[in-house]
Amino acid sequence: MIILHHGWRSSASRRVRLCLEEKGLGYEGHVVDMARLEHHSPEYLKINPLGVIPTLIHDGKPLHESGTICEYLDETYPDPPLRPDAPYERAVMRNWIRHIDGLIGNLIIFNWRHHLAKTASQWSDQELAEVLKNIPSKERQEAWLRAARKPYSEEERGAARDKLVTSLLDRMEAALKPSGWMVGNAYSIADIAAVPFVKRIDEEIAPDEVGPRKHPRVAEWWAKIQARPAYSRAKFDPFVTTL
Amino acid sequence: MIILHHGWRSSASRRVRLCLEEKGLGYEGHVVDMARLEHHSPEYLKINPLGVIPTLIHDGKPLHESGTICEYLDETYPDPPLRPDAPYERAVMRNWIRHIDGLIGNLIIFNWRHHLAKTASQWSDQELAEVLKNIPSKERQEAWLRAARKPYSEEERGAARDKLVTSLLDRMEAALKPSGWMVGNAYSIADIAAVPFVKRIDEEIAPDEVGPRKHPRVAEWWAKIQARPAYSRAKFDPFVTTL
Repeated sequence: MIILHHGWRSSASRRVRLCLEEKGLGYEGHVVDMARLEHHSPEYLKINPLGVIPTLIHDGKPLHESGTICEYLDETYPDPPLRPDAPYERAVMRNWIRHIDGLIGNLIIFNWRHHLAKTASQWSDQELAEVLKNIPSKERQEAWLRAARKPYSEEERGAARDKLVTSLLDRMEAALKPSGWMVGNAYSIADIAAVPFVKRIDEEIAPDEVGPRKHPRVAEWWAKIQARPAYSRAKFDPFVTTL
Repeated sequence: MIILHHGWRSSASRRVRLCLEEKGLGYEGHVVDMARLEHHSPEYLKINPLGVIPTLIHDGKPLHESGTICEYLDETYPDPPLRPDAPYERAVMRNWIRHIDGLIGNLIIFNWRHHLAKTASQWSDQELAEVLKNIPSKERQEAWLRAARKPYSEEERGAARDKLVTSLLDRMEAALKPSGWMVGNAYSIADIAAVPFVKRIDEEIAPDEVGPRKHPRVAEWWAKIQARPAYSRAKFDPFVTTL
């Protein structure tokens, strides 16, 4: 029995949904509404003391961190494999996941202003202080504070956009050269880790960068990813309905 | 053929040395002197574009990130095993490593002031600017800037100390309860990840916290760790000779 507590627009949740769909695993989904701070509710903190999404519950045991969850699913349900066989390639895969995880702050700058900022900007100072008090990570505290009171400037968004292009797309372009996949000769959790990022870059952040002129191999990879049945089933709906 | 580019006092290097010694693997060590910025030299950046230590080179292929390196060594040389067999416990082990990695900023506050600050404080503004320009990570830029120009205050050190106690020692105390090891029933890479942190806490940061009164299970674990032959061979010399 697999239960997934997730958000439709959360990048980490999207990774895990994609992994579950690639594996063909059924699961019971529970949507956690971040705008209503459900991920900080006492019930949720019982299964995930960090107050982040997603949480996977398998056989009654909870797990957090999307990269860890995906690798757990691959070890528990090895077929079809989503990790290379060779230890060195596995290591490169793990470092890719870590590297992309480290870029999440740049994505949040674009993501949170859509739905979370609307709610957060209406909190009183006292409500905001209460929210911030309950957030363990400094980076996330800052993100909520900015969503609530001080939207990121065009300059800051530009810097985040540049970082996503140079540290993700440029590196992917180089990595995809040998086989068309990020590591080894096949689709892996490294590709899954990149998908929610490339989706948002293509959709809103820098669409022309995910094209044949700027990053032709990424463009080809992105077309292949979207053509996979698991991608449709994982429901990467448009981030903002008015886009 | 295993080559390790490392620093004696670097926490990540200490983890990898400990892992190699637990495995009984011989290696050729190359010391990288961070105070002389050898990790930013063109030769070093060729094997590690991030300019961090350590780098493991195995069969000519370079790897960075201590957690990734340790798991790679365990996959390549499975005996003696340093990971639990059960996928869930492996996942918990990986999340421990990630969690401890996220605390490194709190350790740097105590570590860098000893040897790196002495050198960095003598740089001219131009030399400092040149150094900062070549550091990819914002967190590390800040750490060098503080080492060079603005030592951390007693208040900042206090906050870092508290964080290490609550987010590492308190959590370890709970995790060690079932078996005396951090995950499952045996010594694993999760324990290795914690060792360089507990060493520094015990040595200088908060020695009374690593004792029978405050964290009895951590104290017992720490005694067991230090009694292992691999610990001596990995050379955790005193951090500062005058301590």
